[in-house]
Amino acid sequence: MVNETQHTCSASSSSKSDGGSSSGSESSKDSSRCSTPVLDADRHERLREKMRRRQDSGDKWFSLEFFPPRTANAAVNLISRFDRMGAGGPLFIDVTWHPAGDPGSDKETSSMIIANTAVNYCGLETILHMTCCNQTKDDITGHLQKAKRLGLKNIMALRGDPVGEEWEEEVDGFNYAVDLVKHIRNEFDDYFDICVAGYPKGHPDAESYEADLRHLKEKVSAGADFIITQLFFRSETFLTFMKDCQAIGITCPIIPGIFPIQGYHSLRQLVKLSKLEVPQEIKDVIEPIKDNDAAIRNYGVELAVSMCRELLDSGMVHGLHFYTLNREVATTEVLKRLGIWKEDPRRPLPWAVSAHPKRRVEDVRPIFWASRPKSYIYRTQEWDDFPNGRWGNSSSPAFGELKDYYLFYLKSKSPREELLKMWGEELTGEESVFEVFTCYITGEPNKNGHKVTCMPWNDDPLATETNLLKEELEKVNRRGILTINSQPNINGKPSTDPIVGWGPSGGYVFQKAYLEFFTSSEIVTALLKVLKKYELRVNYHIVNVKGQNITNAPDLQPNAVTWGIFPGREIIQPTVVDPVSFLSWKDEAFALWIEQWAKLYEEESPSRMIIQYIHDNYYLVNLVDNDFPLENCLWQVVDDTFELLN
Amino acid sequence: MVNETQHTCSASSSSKSDGGSSSGSESSKDSSRCSTPVLDADRHERLREKMRRRQDSGDKWFSLEFFPPRTANAAVNLISRFDRMGAGGPLFIDVTWHPAGDPGSDKETSSMIIANTAVNYCGLETILHMTCCNQTKDDITGHLQKAKRLGLKNIMALRGDPVGEEWEEEVDGFNYAVDLVKHIRNEFDDYFDICVAGYPKGHPDAESYEADLRHLKEKVSAGADFIITQLFFRSETFLTFMKDCQAIGITCPIIPGIFPIQGYHSLRQLVKLSKLEVPQEIKDVIEPIKDNDAAIRNYGVELAVSMCRELLDSGMVHGLHFYTLNREVATTEVLKRLGIWKEDPRRPLPWAVSAHPKRRVEDVRPIFWASRPKSYIYRTQEWDDFPNGRWGNSSSPAFGELKDYYLFYLKSKSPREELLKMWGEELTGEESVFEVFTCYITGEPNKNGHKVTCMPWNDDPLATETNLLKEELEKVNRRGILTINSQPNINGKPSTDPIVGWGPSGGYVFQKAYLEFFTSSEIVTALLKVLKKYELRVNYHIVNVKGQNITNAPDLQPNAVTWGIFPGREIIQPTVVDPVSFLSWKDEAFALWIEQWAKLYEEESPSRMIIQYIHDNYYLVNLVDNDFPLENCLWQVVDDTFELLN
Repeated sequence: MVNETQHTCSASSSSKSDGGSSSGSESSKDSSRCSTPVLDADRHERLREKMRRRQDSGDKWFSLEFFPPRTANAAVNLISRFDRMGAGGPLFIDVTWHPAGDPGSDKETSSMIIANTAVNYCGLETILHMTCCNQTKDDITGHLQKAKRLGLKNIMALRGDPVGEEWEEEVDGFNYAVDLVKHIRNEFDDYFDICVAGYPKGHPDAESYEADLRHLKEKVSAGADFIITQLFFRSETFLTFMKDCQAIGITCPIIPGIFPIQGYHSLRQLVKLSKLEVPQEIKDVIEPIKDNDAAIRNYGVELAVSMCRELLDSGMVHGLHFYTLNREVATTEVLKRLGIWKEDPRRPLPWAVSAHPKRRVEDVRPIFWASRPKSYIYRTQEWDDFPNGRWGNSSSPAFGELKDYYLFYLKSKSPREELLKMWGEELTGEESVFEVFTCYITGEPNKNGHKVTCMPWNDDPLATETNLLKEELEKVNRRGILTINSQPNINGKPSTDPIVGWGPSGGYVFQKAYLEFFTSSEIVTALLKVLKKYELRVNYHIVNVKGQNITNAPDLQPNAVTWGIFPGREIIQPTVVDPVSFLSWKDEAFALWIEQWAKLYEEESPSRMIIQYIHDNYYLVNLVDNDFPLENCLWQVVDDTFELLN
Repeated sequence: MVNETQHTCSASSSSKSDGGSSSGSESSKDSSRCSTPVLDADRHERLREKMRRRQDSGDKWFSLEFFPPRTANAAVNLISRFDRMGAGGPLFIDVTWHPAGDPGSDKETSSMIIANTAVNYCGLETILHMTCCNQTKDDITGHLQKAKRLGLKNIMALRGDPVGEEWEEEVDGFNYAVDLVKHIRNEFDDYFDICVAGYPKGHPDAESYEADLRHLKEKVSAGADFIITQLFFRSETFLTFMKDCQAIGITCPIIPGIFPIQGYHSLRQLVKLSKLEVPQEIKDVIEPIKDNDAAIRNYGVELAVSMCRELLDSGMVHGLHFYTLNREVATTEVLKRLGIWKEDPRRPLPWAVSAHPKRRVEDVRPIFWASRPKSYIYRTQEWDDFPNGRWGNSSSPAFGELKDYYLFYLKSKSPREELLKMWGEELTGEESVFEVFTCYITGEPNKNGHKVTCMPWNDDPLATETNLLKEELEKVNRRGILTINSQPNINGKPSTDPIVGWGPSGGYVFQKAYLEFFTSSEIVTALLKVLKKYELRVNYHIVNVKGQNITNAPDLQPNAVTWGIFPGREIIQPTVVDPVSFLSWKDEAFALWIEQWAKLYEEESPSRMIIQYIHDNYYLVNLVDNDFPLENCLWQVVDDTFELLN
């Protein structure tokens, strides 16, 4: 009977059987468990485990290759592209190593910094390429240590192109990728997942196809976890290669490198570099249309889709690696047509998570940085532990200074001229500032006909969720309650709700209403009188640039304002209003007036002085309505305040 | 204007002003904050701070003195009394030191162990008396170290009565209480709060009243934090004493010791021991009624109430200390008539908190021990850290073995004969066991006319909350689903709800429906088939005594089943269903069948074999319905199971 019940157990994959031991303390010591509710298993696995899990479950996946750009502006654009293409759900991206571009430096265009940005600021699992040819052991170790420090967990180990003709093997040097693989395993044990390159047609410099296969096997034996191949033009090329690999005992995942043809010149250049031959049937199609970019791209997409379909249909391929050439359209099109571009509107948490391994357990943040997650990540990058489960468990937060408002990953996407058009070439008084805020909320053009699509505190248009409050926000901004952050109250909506949902399905999400704004001291005086009536219901923090701080928060305790209840899990409370962090945030929030807005105007100009006046005299206020099941009372608080002023 | 807004700040006591510093990281480093939401400030303060806070707020308080009993049975009764009198809200209790009763030993009747029980198992702030006369420094230090280890934070430092007439001062020995005070401060710094005794009429052995006052001042100067006085019969006695103390510079709290006269003999004995004189007007009343206990007690209550009123009305007295003589009625009556007995139905957490300083931050426990909190405290007493905020944050739980089911603080209040009447002198089959469970649920007498007021898994009658489920519980127990723990689902009731509420007011509490029961393997087989339909909604753990374990819990993660949302605080989730702890609990739950029930019957008797059969063959099952906003589906699950069986 006992056995029978065991057999009828329905949840076979998740059933745990702990037969035998009847001693509680023994069995509990044996068991290991996560220190945090795993809302998103992906965050807790290393890349090779993710790959294996997808393979086991049969979920097809893709990955994207980028190269570091030449200019800082191009880097800003590339990061936006990471964010957009990240939305399609790549298993990872990789960033190539440009030996000529100072790849391990702190320059904003270096391979290292681009990969760092992808991991930490865009939350993408990232592989950093690294070549070893012509480099010292110390250089390489230094690069690897830096990569580790920045939170990079995956290295693509490559030989790189020898410089010039006179290249000779160095004794004890790094002559081949296999030397780099060995070095990584020697110096960093199992810390990194290592990827190596495979050549479906054999490496052009190899003695033979077979010799190249043997080299590949050496790389795997030395510790590589998986293989990404050079591009190829026919699915048979890859499938044959894969069978040949398996035949000599290569069992790790082999991921085909897909190159959607996007233009005549880029194809020619790539082919030249990789010493590959373009099949005649492709040449025949392309040559006649070589000046028609759109036609070539359409053909490239078509070709890639049909080749990818053949690969996936073979049953031997679980993931596809795309050489994007830093472009979006063709790759995205191929992925969408294959049905593996999976734009999942569900967020694992209400804020974008970082992929740094230190931040794996992080699941609480102050709400203040809701529109500036990259700034929050930057300012907390030195933390050793990240709050998990409860904000109050973390030690007193020491936020790094945000001195450089032009850090490239915080840079506004809009140039100065654009900003002036949105925020006013010339301000005539505080009211013209009110108008800018109001136009941002409403989406209506300003009096010069320009839409206000960003603000110093938010580089993006209004969030969908904030749209729920649009009408009220418009009204209060018009009158000088200059809102920079808000959320409606939510009393148990399904976690799959397209606007306010987050986390796994089957759960319920909740919010306390929140409103944060700048306003004049006259309004603050009236507001404080009104707040007396709401003392037990509304928590407030009111602070000016000098740090004068008025609050009714009990014992400087954080107030959870977003939380979720999920099946079989502990409570998750991803955002809090933390009185201590608020004082760091106010420095940043006030400084943005000057750094992003006032400095658009000449010194001593009236426009600049208006912003400076606001910066010097306004208060930053946040309000939380604790009674989340009732109708949000914060609008009533603001109405009462205006009424008192009249 | 800025100043004006500061002045209008309404929440003066809780306002934090952080003027000046405009550097966020600086100001955040300066600030200190709690590592846990303070749901109940009392838990985080030491006794002298609690006293001061009550004094500042004007809240009157009381405390209760007990002495260690002579027998283990009397100790069990005393602990029940702690629980009952603890409900009235004493600021602390104290336990006297009986030098003749091996007071520092591990005996269940020792002063040390009684005080330990009060702190750890009854959650009462406790002062342990300690006398120093005729003891070595090492003995004393040993006692103090043990007290510290057990979680005792407060010592009443006394000289104690010299043994015999030949007592002489020892050089460098402990001759007076002041020596003990100094020793505690020397050896344990500020760890303990120290109380000393004051004598409103002067100590009987002192040269004079004035000399005794000087001794008292020495004790305070040596480090005592407050004073409790010897009993007295007139309020003027105390008030004069207090003024005299203040006149010579004693500024610490002085708490009057109140002795409600409860009987003629106890009064005579106490008076003899304390060498006090009973005022003539009291003698005049008592002598004529000396054989009428009720009359004397009524008079004693009357007298105590009027004296206490005078003390409180003087404005000089904030707290009253009661010499209970281990009796309940008179003291409780006085306290109720004074209006300072405050039975607060609101619980700080859904379970009774322990007062051990190590457990201050504890706010999560597995639900399994809901009816056996003392067992939970016992089995976790060796933990260094207690879960706070999230169960999963604690290291893998190592529960101590509960070998001795007769540990005195876990002992059933009912004797064996009583239990046999309730649970059956003779069992005729599994059905007679079903009947016992059913009678416990319904409150109806069993077929022999006895009410079943306790069960091996619960020494108390059914909780009010469980009553909400009574009808369904009766139905399922009758058919062999033998429930031992359950809670209804709750979707946001006010935290002040008299039945399911807990925590500070202004909050909302939530629960997932929970059901835990023993049942046969036949029923388990059917249940598992039914559970397939509820796979996404219901989490289950099913285990037998051998540890065969069937569950669909994801990754052995805990499931929060009770949580609360409060104004200005992080989320509190005080109970979880933890898959790992469940395996320790099942050992305890199965063992209770044998230890508490089977062993009532003779070996080899049919009754004993029936219980043994259930122990060996039944499963322990727990079910959680994750969809707390919907109607509880667990009854449907059980109904479906019975239907499948038919």
